[in-house]
Amino acid sequence: MSLWVQKYGGTSVGSLDRIRRVADKVIEAKQAGHQVVVVVSAMSGETNRLVGLAESLVECPDPREYSVTVATGEMVSMALLAMCLIDKGYPARSYTGAQAQIFSENHCVKARIERIDPYPLKQALEEGIIPVVAGFQGVDSYGNITTLGRGGSDTTAVALAASLAADECQIYTDVDGVYTADPRVVPDARQLTHITFEEMLELASLGAKVLQKRSVELIGKYKVPLRVLSSFHDGQGTLITYEEVSMERPLVSGIAFNRSEAKLSIIGVPDQPGVAAKILGPIGEANIDVDMIVQNKINEDLTDLSFTVGREDYKKALEILSAVAKELGARDIKGDAKIAKISLVGVGMRSHSGVAPQMFQVLGAEGINIQLISTSEIKISVVVDEKYLELGVRALHAAFGLDKGADEDFDPKMRDFK
Amino acid sequence: MSLWVQKYGGTSVGSLDRIRRVADKVIEAKQAGHQVVVVVSAMSGETNRLVGLAESLVECPDPREYSVTVATGEMVSMALLAMCLIDKGYPARSYTGAQAQIFSENHCVKARIERIDPYPLKQALEEGIIPVVAGFQGVDSYGNITTLGRGGSDTTAVALAASLAADECQIYTDVDGVYTADPRVVPDARQLTHITFEEMLELASLGAKVLQKRSVELIGKYKVPLRVLSSFHDGQGTLITYEEVSMERPLVSGIAFNRSEAKLSIIGVPDQPGVAAKILGPIGEANIDVDMIVQNKINEDLTDLSFTVGREDYKKALEILSAVAKELGARDIKGDAKIAKISLVGVGMRSHSGVAPQMFQVLGAEGINIQLISTSEIKISVVVDEKYLELGVRALHAAFGLDKGADEDFDPKMRDFK
Repeated sequence: MSLWVQKYGGTSVGSLDRIRRVADKVIEAKQAGHQVVVVVSAMSGETNRLVGLAESLVECPDPREYSVTVATGEMVSMALLAMCLIDKGYPARSYTGAQAQIFSENHCVKARIERIDPYPLKQALEEGIIPVVAGFQGVDSYGNITTLGRGGSDTTAVALAASLAADECQIYTDVDGVYTADPRVVPDARQLTHITFEEMLELASLGAKVLQKRSVELIGKYKVPLRVLSSFHDGQGTLITYEEVSMERPLVSGIAFNRSEAKLSIIGVPDQPGVAAKILGPIGEANIDVDMIVQNKINEDLTDLSFTVGREDYKKALEILSAVAKELGARDIKGDAKIAKISLVGVGMRSHSGVAPQMFQVLGAEGINIQLISTSEIKISVVVDEKYLELGVRALHAAFGLDKGADEDFDPKMRDFK
Repeated sequence: MSLWVQKYGGTSVGSLDRIRRVADKVIEAKQAGHQVVVVVSAMSGETNRLVGLAESLVECPDPREYSVTVATGEMVSMALLAMCLIDKGYPARSYTGAQAQIFSENHCVKARIERIDPYPLKQALEEGIIPVVAGFQGVDSYGNITTLGRGGSDTTAVALAASLAADECQIYTDVDGVYTADPRVVPDARQLTHITFEEMLELASLGAKVLQKRSVELIGKYKVPLRVLSSFHDGQGTLITYEEVSMERPLVSGIAFNRSEAKLSIIGVPDQPGVAAKILGPIGEANIDVDMIVQNKINEDLTDLSFTVGREDYKKALEILSAVAKELGARDIKGDAKIAKISLVGVGMRSHSGVAPQMFQVLGAEGINIQLISTSEIKISVVVDEKYLELGVRALHAAFGLDKGADEDFDPKMRDFK
């Protein structure tokens, strides 16, 4: 008998009919002989309604009371799902963060989970009861109700799975799983049956929206076997694994992209130790996040430096850079908001060279000029003109065989988790 | 410095604007130098919305999960009021039933409060914090969220006032206080500044809707000085007191009435020990509450018996009585659903005779025939034809001088409570 932690998001419990369908999915797992702990978000729209009440009432709601207000959303869904399970003949019991003994830091908003006492839920499981836990909430050491950060219900599920040593943490969402690329851009994109944790972390950082980056980090910390599935369609979803890279691993697992960044360059800066800090320091002080950074030394005395920022910060960053350029005696600055970033991700890159040259060749053959390049151990990102985004992504998807399903045969033992 | 427990009902916190007004009322009391503990109901309409969700989802919601669902309504209002107070510069903190340590019986719905640990709220008061407590909810010995019975938020306020030895429990509602009679029927009706607990209990039992009977019983148990006030108008409201009856007390404090009952009579029953039980036993077994009971022995062998029941139970009671009459060999049965009950209430009746004869005389002078009479130590109730209700109530109101304000001069020492 395996223990599964199943998490259902806001759209999955967005109506009474959907709650009934979630109950059926939980019962299906029970009938297959598994123990199940369920984590639920608030019904879709409910969190916004509660936030709206608080923010219409006062300009800057007290964090403790804000958390109490918002936390009621998950309490309603947990109780509704529990009563639905009971009504269908399956003993269930709802748990607030406090009742499930999910202890968080002593601040009320964006609190991190510090520890979980697994006893109450273990006890319920032993009695054959299905615990239904409110996501996104905890309790601090003073008994205050706290709420977690973004992706909070995923975090609750992952932390509970770790604490209960669950066999699998299943995140039910409105997509079928993780794809080789966004299916809206690449019609041939294929759903992956497996992806390594490191790849998932890169994909989340690079703009894939399946899981919040913070939840992925937590998964890695506790090595929780995690599966992303659809609440609305049957299927095996995508399992996130932690195995060592085998030689059979495909070079590239997926392609991520975004067009939400802008590029800035400062040209011909007199080079001296610490010049990069002098350029990027004022940008950081203005609370602007810098993503890619590329420095290129022109000659003994001068250097060029380019970087990307979120497109919403582009104008502000350009103003700051203009002032910096004057101060440092740079020759020129340039900016371009019409760029796109395309990234190949795959743990196979560690053991195989040749991915980068092949990527550049594919893009070159399509007449796509590369503006910036940045690499990590399992990722290559390039910046290109925005208009080439779809063309580039589709060409790379085909060239690296992502439509061919090499992934399908990979590591069948991982299927034991399900 | 006095300690006040203030309770605000659903209409008093029914919108964000009203919550702001409640905050101002609380602050007014703080500024006058009092300590304040606030109890709130759910925003009006919210409890119905939550009940609707549960009852649309499943036919018969599990009581534990039903309570969790409904209890979120009060949690939202307590957090909103607390953040509004904080926003206005007054430290405040919301408390769920569990956080306020309000322990109830171990069943989840209509649970009675068993004990309150006053420490958390006392601690907050000492730190200058205004506690805002969710009404209508508690926690059982297993940590389950429970909800109290009807009038639950009043009960919370009264129980907290008792546990904290508050100087006054103030129930803010949508009426200005307790009146000598319903002002919609008697335009001359006057708001009472004081009423004794026993009178209030009789009035609540007889159909006055200001306070639930159960809350009044609890007030009496703990001798909590309780004031009923309006959230919407300024004023002193009505204070419920516990003093011994003084000779200055007016004979009659108020007039209650209802037209929600029906009368049944069984005529010419062979009299024998236990005949009343034989008649009323089957009525009680059918879960029909009997209110007034009058027996009248006709001669050595025969007796008549009349009683009243809720009008909704009239038909069923008549069927049962018909079967009983046959069994007992009664001569006849009669029934009348078009009756009204008028009651005079006043602790002064204890020391003054003559109220009953005066009442009968007043009604007789108006040509109103009395069908049944029932008396207790501080109350006289009569049943009359429904069509005479308004006429009778107004005549009695004038005859006993209830429009004259005799109450105004009464026992000024009781004003110390405010």
